[in-house]
Amino acid sequence: MGPHPAVAAIRLAVRRVLHDILTEHGRITDEPPRATVPEPARATAHAGGHPRAHRTPHEQPPPPLVLVACSGGADSMALASALAFEAPKLGIRAGGVTVDHGLQPGSDLRADEVVLRLRELGLDPVESVAVTVGREGGPEAAARDARYAALDTVAEHHGAAAVLLGHTRDDQAETVLLGLARGSGIRSLSGMAAVSGAGGRYRRPFLQLDRQTARKACMAQSLPVWDDPHNADPAYTRSRLRHEGLPALEKALGKGVVEALARTAQLSRDDADALDAWAAQAESTVRDAAGLLECAKLYALPPAVRRRVLRRAAIEAGAPAGSLFARHIEELDRLITGWRGQGAINLPGKVVAQRQGGRLVIRQG
Amino acid sequence: MGPHPAVAAIRLAVRRVLHDILTEHGRITDEPPRATVPEPARATAHAGGHPRAHRTPHEQPPPPLVLVACSGGADSMALASALAFEAPKLGIRAGGVTVDHGLQPGSDLRADEVVLRLRELGLDPVESVAVTVGREGGPEAAARDARYAALDTVAEHHGAAAVLLGHTRDDQAETVLLGLARGSGIRSLSGMAAVSGAGGRYRRPFLQLDRQTARKACMAQSLPVWDDPHNADPAYTRSRLRHEGLPALEKALGKGVVEALARTAQLSRDDADALDAWAAQAESTVRDAAGLLECAKLYALPPAVRRRVLRRAAIEAGAPAGSLFARHIEELDRLITGWRGQGAINLPGKVVAQRQGGRLVIRQG
Repeated sequence: MGPHPAVAAIRLAVRRVLHDILTEHGRITDEPPRATVPEPARATAHAGGHPRAHRTPHEQPPPPLVLVACSGGADSMALASALAFEAPKLGIRAGGVTVDHGLQPGSDLRADEVVLRLRELGLDPVESVAVTVGREGGPEAAARDARYAALDTVAEHHGAAAVLLGHTRDDQAETVLLGLARGSGIRSLSGMAAVSGAGGRYRRPFLQLDRQTARKACMAQSLPVWDDPHNADPAYTRSRLRHEGLPALEKALGKGVVEALARTAQLSRDDADALDAWAAQAESTVRDAAGLLECAKLYALPPAVRRRVLRRAAIEAGAPAGSLFARHIEELDRLITGWRGQGAINLPGKVVAQRQGGRLVIRQG
Repeated sequence: MGPHPAVAAIRLAVRRVLHDILTEHGRITDEPPRATVPEPARATAHAGGHPRAHRTPHEQPPPPLVLVACSGGADSMALASALAFEAPKLGIRAGGVTVDHGLQPGSDLRADEVVLRLRELGLDPVESVAVTVGREGGPEAAARDARYAALDTVAEHHGAAAVLLGHTRDDQAETVLLGLARGSGIRSLSGMAAVSGAGGRYRRPFLQLDRQTARKACMAQSLPVWDDPHNADPAYTRSRLRHEGLPALEKALGKGVVEALARTAQLSRDDADALDAWAAQAESTVRDAAGLLECAKLYALPPAVRRRVLRRAAIEAGAPAGSLFARHIEELDRLITGWRGQGAINLPGKVVAQRQGGRLVIRQG
């Protein structure tokens, strides 16, 4: 008898990501890559196919270390258990780290408990890191910034090849809705990436998996899990979204909403990447010999590309990306498409934009 | 004393659209275009500005007719009242049409009443059209199809330059969420266009205006309005979204959600247009001399562009656009990016896709 279906699902998800990591580290295994659709019988005619490279074991570099970031909640405990199971089979060392945000009394004791549980799973090394959460960008953003800074430090200290994060498809759906609420375009709809951070350090194996599966996998393996009270605290936007917003949306639109939001994230990300690439290429073509933006050439670009070129130019001139909103870019765009002799426009970071003799001049004032 | 602010807002929205229509019909007025941001003092140096063309009245073609589509509800009654007020000032004839969907007992009497109210506003011609609503695509889609077919017929019969529709920013937000639930990418997030239909026949002056403003404008002008019971019927997805989904989302995410969704629609539309244009251009570059798609060239395209090229190719081969879902395109894409000797893939419309000798062959089987 095989493992519980939920356990099989979390292990498969982790196995795929570990396989990717091995491939990237030049440790290609004999195992064929897993298909995300049922695999049809292998055709004999293989024209155009890419034969897979092989290495014998003695050519391989030392075994890489993969860490799991674990809060002790169901998602990351499931992830830790799957990593502990899969890593040794692929010759990978598996470790864990838990971050004590110090936001609740007794959070240090809980962190110690998570460390014990991760050790019980066979992970080594396992670390707990205490961080100080600031206030910048609101409580959720501040906690996130502190957490990633700590994870970066631990990963670098141990020379880890990757850090696995337990974000599920449900988290992704919430992130898309949070981005939607900003109304700042498709980049903010693209949610979390499966691979992110410097050198692709962070990996999210569960991004296609629902929260329920992670929970079931913990139950099936009798893993104790800890429910973070923050997750149910209506003071947090994400918590309100999770417990009220998203269920109401599902009631109105049907059960597929979470999946649809996650798919929207992936499609939006690819679209945003393509348009960013276009804008990067277009920017060089709309500047004159002196490096100034030519209004007539900007005008000829598709609006989606022109707005991105303008955004790039404003950031280049010193406007902080995080303070540059859709309305700033719209106002900038009207200097090109709705020119009626407007005066200079003030942008964040003391950046000033104005039209001068058919050129758009953007500079720090 | 000027009009009530809500009345001023609906009139301004209609005036802008009528101005656009006059411009497109070669009847440029003396009135400068309205800015959507506070207009700064006109700069004296006007380098790069576009001087406006002028015509004297005797050069003008006969006055165009603009129709309003009116259900008798607050949005379209407000629209009708603003059209009746603004059109004569711009030398435009204003008429109206109401569609009797025959879905409720007494709908014919209600249509007669709407006709009377539109005539009382001074509109001429005013017509009521009865339609038969089919079943295709569900009750909402079927009613919509029947309605637009009737509006097209009336517009053509009277030679109308445009038909105004009363969709508000709230309707737009609902449409974006309905598109989000499909999870089929940014085109479905782009909601309703301000200008749509053959030759730009349909115009939506209230797309930036909230429903509350339309309602207030009716009250301020003592216009009786009719509340369509369908709008509150929880059997309809849109109605559930309006009365439960969207309010819950606003409660979780804050009051700006409707505005953010409407802005997302506009940004997504521009992005989708730009990427479609790129795909159209790219398609010609990835075909060999025989017109077959070259896998290596497809592989080199950004994923967002490649998927659009594949979608275009599938539709060209006979797959009905409406039946082609994201998962079909994903499977097709794996023939390029995840090639392991897969067999032929079946697409809607009996279209078959397979990889042959480094080419992707898509044809009706």
